[in-house]
Amino acid sequence: MLAERLKHYDIILASASPRRKQLLEEMGLRFRVEPKHIDEVFPDDLNPVEAAEFLSRIKADAFTKDDLHDNTLIIASDTVVTLDGEILGKPAGKAEAIEILQQLSGKTHEVITGVTIKALDKQHTFSVTTSVVFKTLSLQEINHYIDTFKPFDKAGAYGIQEWIGHVAIERIDGSYFNVMGLPTHSLYEELLRFA
Amino acid sequence: MLAERLKHYDIILASASPRRKQLLEEMGLRFRVEPKHIDEVFPDDLNPVEAAEFLSRIKADAFTKDDLHDNTLIIASDTVVTLDGEILGKPAGKAEAIEILQQLSGKTHEVITGVTIKALDKQHTFSVTTSVVFKTLSLQEINHYIDTFKPFDKAGAYGIQEWIGHVAIERIDGSYFNVMGLPTHSLYEELLRFA
Repeated sequence: MLAERLKHYDIILASASPRRKQLLEEMGLRFRVEPKHIDEVFPDDLNPVEAAEFLSRIKADAFTKDDLHDNTLIIASDTVVTLDGEILGKPAGKAEAIEILQQLSGKTHEVITGVTIKALDKQHTFSVTTSVVFKTLSLQEINHYIDTFKPFDKAGAYGIQEWIGHVAIERIDGSYFNVMGLPTHSLYEELLRFA
Repeated sequence: MLAERLKHYDIILASASPRRKQLLEEMGLRFRVEPKHIDEVFPDDLNPVEAAEFLSRIKADAFTKDDLHDNTLIIASDTVVTLDGEILGKPAGKAEAIEILQQLSGKTHEVITGVTIKALDKQHTFSVTTSVVFKTLSLQEINHYIDTFKPFDKAGAYGIQEWIGHVAIERIDGSYFNVMGLPTHSLYEELLRFA
C-alpha cells in the first residue's frame, strides 16, 4: 500500500493547480502544496512528450539542495495539449481561447502529462499520453463555455471535468485523470518503485 | 444549446444516485430527482447491452400516463458491469465484493449504461459501452478499498471516481462519465434529437 510505504516522507506537491491537489488527495496521500514560480519555457527542438517531461523537471529543479531534507519528496508535473504534433498553449484571452477550441473541434488530440519525482539523492521523470476525441463544437457552444468557465489558465483552453467535458468529449483512450492534470495510476506505480 | 432547447420541459431524473445527479447538473440542466422503486430483474436470455437498456426502460415505465404531463421529460438509466459476457451484480456484502474485485483484477471489463428518455407521446432507449482496464490488485488493496469505501451499492463493486479508480484503472476506452453512471456526451446528443 502506497500511503504506508510513503509515511516517513514529507511530500510536496509543486503545483498551484486545485485539480492536481484534489487528485493527489483522492490517491490517499498526505502532502503539502508548495508551488515555485518558473517560466514555462522549453527549447524549440523538443517534441511534445519531451516538452512535458522537461517542464516537469524544471518545476522539480526549482527546489535546490538547500530546500531538500533527507525525507523530502517532490512531485512536479506539467500538462501539454498537442494537436497534429503542435503544442497548444494556455490562451491569452477570449479570442485565443475561441481559436484553440475551434482547432480541437471535430478532431482527436493528445494530452500529455509529464511528472518528475525528486528526492535528495535521486529523481525520476515519466509521462503519460491520453487521446481525446472532440465532437464538432458550434461557435455558440464555444462562446457559452468560455464566458461561463473562463478557461484561461488551462492548456488547450478546456477542463475535462467541466461542462465542455460532458458535452464535447465523445471518448478518450487512456487515463481520464491524466487529462485533468495527473496520471494517478502511473504515479501510484512509479511512487511504489521510487520509494 | 441544450438547456435553452429544454427550457419548457419539467425534467425528472428517475434515479437516487448522487453521481447521476451530479453529472446531469454538470451538463447544465435543471431537473428534479424522483426515483421510483422497481425490482431490477430482467429476462435470462438478454445479453448485457439488452439488459442495461431493458432496466432503464422499466425504470422509465414506472412512470405511467397519470404521472406524465405534456411537458414532462423522464431520464432513467441503469449501469451494468460485464466481464467475458457475464453480468456482475451489486455485491451483497464484503465477501461478494472481494470476489467481484478479484474477478476484475488484471482484466478488461465493459461498463454499459442504458438510458431511456420518455415523454408523454414518445420514448427512446440507447446505451453506451466503455472498456475499463484494471491492473492486478493485491488482496490488501481490495480489502482497504472495501473497508474504506463500502461499494455495496455499486455494480461491479467499485466507483471509478474513488481511490480505486486512481490506483487500479490503467486506462479506459470510451466515456469516463458513462462508467460513473451517465453517458453525458451521448445523452446531450440524444436529448437534442428528442426534444
